[in-house]
Amino acid sequence: MLSTADHTTERPPYAAWLRSTNNITQQFLSLGNRPDVISMAGGLPASELYPVAAVEEATRAALARWGSQALEYGPVEGLPALRDAIAARISAATDGLFTRENILLTTGAMQGLDLIGKVLLDPGDLVVAQFPTYLGALDAWRPRAPRYARLDWTLGEPGFAETLRAAKFVYAVPNYSNPTGVLVPQQGRRALLEAVVAAGTWLVEDDPYLPLQLDGSAGPSILAHDRAARGTERYDGPVLYLGTLSKSLVPGLRVGWVVAEPKIIQMLALAKQSTDLSSSVFTQSVALSLIEGTVEREQVARTVAAYRARRDALCAAAAASLSPWFEWEVPPGGMFVWMRATHPGIDTNALYAHALAENVTFVPSSVFDPSGELRTAMRLNFTRNPPDVLAEGVRRLERAVRRYLAA
Amino acid sequence: MLSTADHTTERPPYAAWLRSTNNITQQFLSLGNRPDVISMAGGLPASELYPVAAVEEATRAALARWGSQALEYGPVEGLPALRDAIAARISAATDGLFTRENILLTTGAMQGLDLIGKVLLDPGDLVVAQFPTYLGALDAWRPRAPRYARLDWTLGEPGFAETLRAAKFVYAVPNYSNPTGVLVPQQGRRALLEAVVAAGTWLVEDDPYLPLQLDGSAGPSILAHDRAARGTERYDGPVLYLGTLSKSLVPGLRVGWVVAEPKIIQMLALAKQSTDLSSSVFTQSVALSLIEGTVEREQVARTVAAYRARRDALCAAAAASLSPWFEWEVPPGGMFVWMRATHPGIDTNALYAHALAENVTFVPSSVFDPSGELRTAMRLNFTRNPPDVLAEGVRRLERAVRRYLAA
Repeated sequence: MLSTADHTTERPPYAAWLRSTNNITQQFLSLGNRPDVISMAGGLPASELYPVAAVEEATRAALARWGSQALEYGPVEGLPALRDAIAARISAATDGLFTRENILLTTGAMQGLDLIGKVLLDPGDLVVAQFPTYLGALDAWRPRAPRYARLDWTLGEPGFAETLRAAKFVYAVPNYSNPTGVLVPQQGRRALLEAVVAAGTWLVEDDPYLPLQLDGSAGPSILAHDRAARGTERYDGPVLYLGTLSKSLVPGLRVGWVVAEPKIIQMLALAKQSTDLSSSVFTQSVALSLIEGTVEREQVARTVAAYRARRDALCAAAAASLSPWFEWEVPPGGMFVWMRATHPGIDTNALYAHALAENVTFVPSSVFDPSGELRTAMRLNFTRNPPDVLAEGVRRLERAVRRYLAA
Repeated sequence: MLSTADHTTERPPYAAWLRSTNNITQQFLSLGNRPDVISMAGGLPASELYPVAAVEEATRAALARWGSQALEYGPVEGLPALRDAIAARISAATDGLFTRENILLTTGAMQGLDLIGKVLLDPGDLVVAQFPTYLGALDAWRPRAPRYARLDWTLGEPGFAETLRAAKFVYAVPNYSNPTGVLVPQQGRRALLEAVVAAGTWLVEDDPYLPLQLDGSAGPSILAHDRAARGTERYDGPVLYLGTLSKSLVPGLRVGWVVAEPKIIQMLALAKQSTDLSSSVFTQSVALSLIEGTVEREQVARTVAAYRARRDALCAAAAASLSPWFEWEVPPGGMFVWMRATHPGIDTNALYAHALAENVTFVPSSVFDPSGELRTAMRLNFTRNPPDVLAEGVRRLERAVRRYLAA
């Protein structure tokens, strides 16, 4: 828990959500920065692959093209030419009609989650979320104090239709979900969409890992299914789709987007204006130069090849070291392997301390559970470290498990 | 009011703060984009002065220095070297000890306001705010649903000490306030600080206009007074001080900062992580290169000279055209002239339509009032347009006033 009692002097207390939360995420993630620790905790890209020279060249091109315009405030919705480019990308991916009115540029997709919370959530409102859930989404919505129900992809649970009708929105990460790496089958996407439309609620489709297709195609998004069901008019459906350049290019430009029907885009822009006036048009203009050329395509190809090798190295090492105590699927994309304990004595919150003692880190499953109760799994990241480091990390994890179970 | 009733289909409603607010700000500001309209509405800098070539050079230097590090996620608190540079700047300005632990980098100072609201405000909490109030602050805190009391700089109002004790924080813009342009005298700053310390509350000192000192020095900040009263330890007082590079360099880098005692900086960082993970380290590294050299100092000198001429042109034109109906002080700094109607028949919300008909815009006083009731003044920006355009804008305003009063 946060130590919120010990103000330096007596001053007014923090807001309630901070007094009732914990900073376990910060604790877990910050511990990974020691050079002797192999961190498989964060969801960080392979920074040695970043196209530094291309960014410099793109900056030169952007400033030549836009001049002082690239150094201005907003517009709050983002650089119109980049909104157009993203609209064209989404139109191509969905065989539909999306225009800049469907697009809000954000400071990474993370800001989209924050803005969606601001626009849709009042305290006590219900969110139906894929379980386990991306911890960043839980963090983003905590100040709005929602309740959570579990998204049942089979739609088979009794009362689930009523749950959907009571929800402000559904939150799903169909492509290589964080933390599980699962690729939700097309049939499941279509069925969920039908249920959402029938219930008359919103559906937040968070798709940061789309570029990281390691084994074959991800297939159509839920947004694409909804577009197809609606015909060729400009999109006005219930899907709020989040994308980002953080995985296909670099995270440091902080360029993400929300795709949605124009009215809620206006509401999100109103919320964004009161959040930061506008994101950086400078980084947006650099991003536009990068995606108009071949840099992004080449970067994705290079990244996918590297990540595939890393995933395979991690899974091979795990098969040799961790299979007595854990099971997992080889994820077809994304950045994570989700390991579920098969040994009944394993609590991954408790295992964490032993891992740290062996100079290796992971993220325990509890942070992906709104109630914090899921303690039988762990998320391993395979994108940040090269294969030999991952193999060494897994060997350390094996020692940590042995030490933990012997304790 | 927003038309929130006409969802495309029946979907869950927006959050309560959006249903109870209005988008007058967006309406007023967006109307200024027509090329035939002279906008004196927004608070925009003179973009023709932006140091475009210097930004390109700084980008080259930053990428050479930081490489792929400049393209990474966070840290959430911001690039440590830039936090150090800002800490050194604040230490020099206050003759005190500020370290990076006192500094959170934000997406412009505006994000600081959003984060302060998230960390300190629950619905119904009291904010004591300088009146009239920067509309961006009102916008930023609207999702947290606070109540407002007026900051009385004379501290003479009965019950004001109790009001301060009941407040979560005080909000003040002592330097060339938005919207009034007022420079609060040093005695007033010291008296407010003493009252705040006695009441045991927080004080948010918003200081974006510090670089825009058109007539002499602004004098010490409230933060400096508090630092002096506390001695030479690392700062642990109740002031949350907001600064930005948007006025001294360019707004498009979106680099601002909060200076405060380390514990609340940690809380603000926790809120920032759940808002956007981190601001752009890329723009932060470019900003660092710019402020380490002579670019910022030269830019401020050029900007101040231009703004002084523009302010004088606006005030001279107003003296010739608007003095039958308005009174104002010549602001010693900042970006705005605050014109108060002396004619009892003037409602500046109503005047706005007539101004638009004459192709000129301003911001009516109502948006700077939490209750929306202040309708007897208007804010004119003098930084965006050259002197001759400002003079023409004032002549159009004169016609608008005549047309309005004849209607």
